[in-house]
Formats: sequence, C-alpha cells, structure tokens
Amino acid sequence: MLQNIISNIHPLDEVTMEAVEHRVNHLAKPQGSLGKLEEMVVQVAGITGQKFPMTDKKALIVMCCDHGICDEGVASGLQSVTYKQAKHIPRGFTGAGAIAKQMNAKIYSVDVGIMTDVDDEYIIDKKVMYGTNNMAKGPAMTRDQAIKGIEAGIEMAIQAVDEGANILATGEMGIGNTSPTTAILSIYTGCHPSEITGIGGNLPVEKLSHKARIIQQAIEINKPDKNDPLDVLSKVGGLDIAGMTGIMLGAAYKRVPVVIDGFISTISAILACELCPKVRSYLMPSHYSLEKGAKLATDYLGLSPYLDMDMRLGEGTGALLAFNIIEAACYMNREMITFEEATINVV
Amino acid sequence: MLQNIISNIHPLDEVTMEAVEHRVNHLAKPQGSLGKLEEMVVQVAGITGQKFPMTDKKALIVMCCDHGICDEGVASGLQSVTYKQAKHIPRGFTGAGAIAKQMNAKIYSVDVGIMTDVDDEYIIDKKVMYGTNNMAKGPAMTRDQAIKGIEAGIEMAIQAVDEGANILATGEMGIGNTSPTTAILSIYTGCHPSEITGIGGNLPVEKLSHKARIIQQAIEINKPDKNDPLDVLSKVGGLDIAGMTGIMLGAAYKRVPVVIDGFISTISAILACELCPKVRSYLMPSHYSLEKGAKLATDYLGLSPYLDMDMRLGEGTGALLAFNIIEAACYMNREMITFEEATINVV
Repeated sequence: MLQNIISNIHPLDEVTMEAVEHRVNHLAKPQGSLGKLEEMVVQVAGITGQKFPMTDKKALIVMCCDHGICDEGVASGLQSVTYKQAKHIPRGFTGAGAIAKQMNAKIYSVDVGIMTDVDDEYIIDKKVMYGTNNMAKGPAMTRDQAIKGIEAGIEMAIQAVDEGANILATGEMGIGNTSPTTAILSIYTGCHPSEITGIGGNLPVEKLSHKARIIQQAIEINKPDKNDPLDVLSKVGGLDIAGMTGIMLGAAYKRVPVVIDGFISTISAILACELCPKVRSYLMPSHYSLEKGAKLATDYLGLSPYLDMDMRLGEGTGALLAFNIIEAACYMNREMITFEEATINVV
Repeated sequence: MLQNIISNIHPLDEVTMEAVEHRVNHLAKPQGSLGKLEEMVVQVAGITGQKFPMTDKKALIVMCCDHGICDEGVASGLQSVTYKQAKHIPRGFTGAGAIAKQMNAKIYSVDVGIMTDVDDEYIIDKKVMYGTNNMAKGPAMTRDQAIKGIEAGIEMAIQAVDEGANILATGEMGIGNTSPTTAILSIYTGCHPSEITGIGGNLPVEKLSHKARIIQQAIEINKPDKNDPLDVLSKVGGLDIAGMTGIMLGAAYKRVPVVIDGFISTISAILACELCPKVRSYLMPSHYSLEKGAKLATDYLGLSPYLDMDMRLGEGTGALLAFNIIEAACYMNREMITFEEATINVV
C-alpha cells in the first residue's frame, strides 16, 4: 500500500499556480505586499488544482503512542499521560482541543501505539503495538511495524479528506517523543545529540546531558542507515512520527494541503520527503517551535513558518493556529478586486 | 475631551492577571509551553478585568486621509487611490476587507481627512480637513487639527465598543503616509531619514533618497519638539496617524484590547504612549511588517509580534490576522482543564 500511495503522488499543478499568481499580482495592492499570504494561496492552488481554492474544512489528526525509551528516564511526564491526554484531546480539554473548538476544526485522536489497552469511543484504533521498544537497547520497532505506522497515517488522511476536510494538520501525543525525534535529527544533520537535545515537556535541565547520552547510545547501538528512511524510523523512531509521516503522504496523495506543527511533526516531514521528495510542495509550515532542535529541522527543510509564538506544546497546537491564516490567503484571492476593477491606474 | 479620556485610562487589573496566570500555569500542559498564548490571555484578563475574557467580537477601524507631502513625489500611488480604497474597504474588496470577511470582523472605514468631498454610505464622516498640508513647506496641520484627528479615533473606538466589539484593530489608508511616519520615527529614535526610509507602496528604489531628503527637510523646517507629541504629530504627522493614536487611547479608556498593525500603526502607538504611558499595556502587537522602519519602531516599543508574514500592505491586514490567535488564547484559558481535573500528577 505504501509504495502504491507514493507512486500516486504527483507534482503541483503549475498551470493553475501561474494563473493564480497572475491574479494575485493584479489585485489592488502594492505587488508583493501581502508577502507569505500570496505564496500560500499559489501553493494551495497548485496542490488542489483550483483557481479559487478554499481551506475552510479543517481537520487535525493527532497520533498518540508510547515510547520505550521512557525506561531510561528521559521524559519528565509519566507514560500514563499519553492515554489520558489522548482521551482529553477529542473532548476539547487540551491545548489542541481548545484551539480546535475555536476554529471549528475536526479532531481525530488516533491510537497508533498506546502502551495499554484503549477503550474510548473518541479514540480511533490503529494500534500497531503496545508502545515501542527501548531504542537504547535495540530497534524501537520492526520495519514492518514502521510501515504499519505510516499506513495508519495514510488511512487517517484519506478518511479525513473523504469526510470533508480540505486542509489537514498533524499533531502528536506521546510522552518521551522528543528523544526519537532528536535521534532522527542527529542522523540527517550530523549534529551530535549533545548539541540539539532540548527539554521537551520541561525535563529538568540537569537531566539534559543524560537524555543526550541515551539518544547517542540508541544511534550507536542501532546504526540506522540514513539512506533508508524506513531503517531510521524503525530503529530510532516512534509510531507518532510514523503516523504523521503517513498523514503527509496521504494528504499529498489526496491533493490536500497539510500543515506541519512543531519539532516532532517537522522531523516526520523530513522522513516523508525522504520517502517521496514530491511531498515537499504539499507541506505548509506553521510556527517556529521553541524546542531546541526545531529551528534546525525547519531550516533543513527550507521552511519559513508564519508564526513566532514561543510555543513548544505539540499536539498540533501551532498547526491549528496556521489554519486561519491560510484561509485568509484563500479569501484574499477570492474576495479582493483587481486594479482594473478598482479603477486604479498603476503608475 | 482628549485630556478627560487620558485621565480616565487606568493600569491593568493585576489581581485578575495573577488569578489567570495561576490558572494558566496549572492547565494540563508543560508550564510555559504555550508561550505567547499564555501571555496574551493574562494581558487580556488585565485589560478587561475578566477571569475568562473573550475576544470574539472583532472590529477593525480604518482611518483614511490624504497627505500634502505627496506634492513632493514621495509616493508611487495617485492620491485619488485613498478615496477609492476607502470605499472598497467596507465592501470587502481590499486586503483588509477580504480578511475581515473571513473572520466576520466588523469594519469601520473613516474619512478623517480625505482631500475630496466624500459621498458614500459606507464611509463614516470624521473629516478634519481636506488632506494635510505639505510638511516639507510648513506644518502638516495645526495643533487643534491634530487634536481633532485624535478625538475622531477616540470617538470611533468608543462607538465600536458600544456597538459590541470586545477587541479592536487599527488600520489606515492614505497614499503617502509612510513619509510622515518615517519623520516621526526619526524624531523619536534619532535615526536619520536616509537610514530608515522604505519603499512604502512600491516606490521605485531610485526615488528613495529623494523621499528621505524630503522627510529630512520637513523635520528641519518644522523643528518639532519631541517632548511634545502633539507638536510632533501636527508638524510632521498625518490624520491617519492621529486617528489611530486616538483609537488606542479610546480602546484603553473602554478597557478593550487594541491590536497594532504595521509601520504606521506602530508609530501611532508610540505617540499614544507619549501622550499616556498607561496605554502601553493595552496594546497587542500583530506582525513584523517588512517596511524598512517597522522593526525599529516595534523594538522601540518593546513589542514581540506574533506573526512573521513578510507583509507591508497596511489597512489593518496584519492586525486582522492576529485576531484569531488572541481568540485562541481565550479559548485555551476557558476550555482547557487543569492537571488536577485531568488526573495527571505533575512529577
């Protein structure tokens, strides 16, 4: 299935992009003065093939799972928090839940690998395994499990679009997930974990060097092959990362824009682009996360986020905030009149 | 009237701010992880005196006027564009008009000094004069006219709040207005116009040094007293700047948050704070404008905007984009549950 999806992801529709760019350049405003709003709507036009695209049907997919690396004391939160918050997210009680309520975005909370049995009517069952294995002692999961995690994300993206969404955001909930994320960043950028390991969910600063050492140990023991993204993902990744990678592939397959959130989501975007470089042009950034490695990951992908909010919560909170900005770009294109219609002569 | 308003602007409600900060710190998320969203809602709580404030009734007030300095060839647009766009803004045909439509924000388009007679049912009449005088040859307006311009803004803020708004944004439309704005920035920061003059509405780069020389000439001829903001405003200001200064004073008087837009709006904020330092805590930034002097003005006020959009259109477009982010902060405070309610033990 994964290979089939990848081979059905196509480049953006350049003819439509040129038409929309031409229109945007003739709207009654100094040319270029709406900056990233102008780029956004051209991109969305290319993704959807529509001259007047709209992104008003918003959906956030939150991939929830546990991480075996927590055995090493690298996370400040208890692992039981993952399941609790997975339940609270679709009920609107968490950061992402509250913000989604504001903008009437649909939320899908997905169990892609919570460590306990899940019995909750609001959580969608895509469980691959009961939490990953401890990557400091061996591979976090098998290659087949990594593929299953990606496919769970693809299925969720397809479901969300089939249920009406015309824009998707990626989110995650998984205590301990900045550790695999940092391992993957280290592998692709060559930066040592000691340079890029951050506090995640407020890990005490005195435990940072321990966290970095464990991440380095995971890389050394597993020796992931950076030319094989599935090898990287299975050995030092997580199922939330796999799931978000899949959401991005699925969104591109369905020709719907997909919004990246913060650190973990950006690393998933790197993996998605490694698996299928054409995905890159379907991705829209959102905010500059404050988590230590986030800026490096954003720069690695060459993204220029819209929001500077000092946020680092995850769950998709930053991506949600970008929804209304992207929608504003669609309104600009659809509602503004041209210089000619405004009877303004351009000097 | 102006003095009466100023003497009725009070500091924020610190008791409510502390209560909301305490709540925000106990919501189920790593403390501080929602960054500026957390600061925003504490500020809005202090402004309104409400523990669960909401900013869902949005209004943008756009101050429209002409500038005599256009006689010197410092603007690329024709002055007739001011009136045309003043008509198009409330009809949703301009940048701000289109974005306001998206978020259901009310728009007030105000004639505070358009150079021609205005006959349009959608434009509110607060005309002080038929465009300012050419500040390169003498004062742009009298001190009395500057006060009338500010009072027009105060009246509009009061009207918007009385008509239901619980958050205001400032906008302007006035061909030529980056010239008086740059003059005021030069006066307060001590930077020479040649260092801080930008292209405004796409002035050809080869005309930039001419524009800077004219701005410097206006300062030299008028010798504004930087310790007297009304002297600065009347000699080298504009009625859009005066009007936005008034909106900020009026919003603070009515205890409603007011969102700054780009370069011209930020300079109005400097004047508002010079007239009444207590206004500072009622102001909320929005975006980093790309106009050359904007960052300096933002830094001068010590503001940290939320959006990085490469925009420089004005009209209130950037401030509008901030509305939904501030509303998201209110939802965070109102909808999220605490660690205790989430049965999460903080380690």
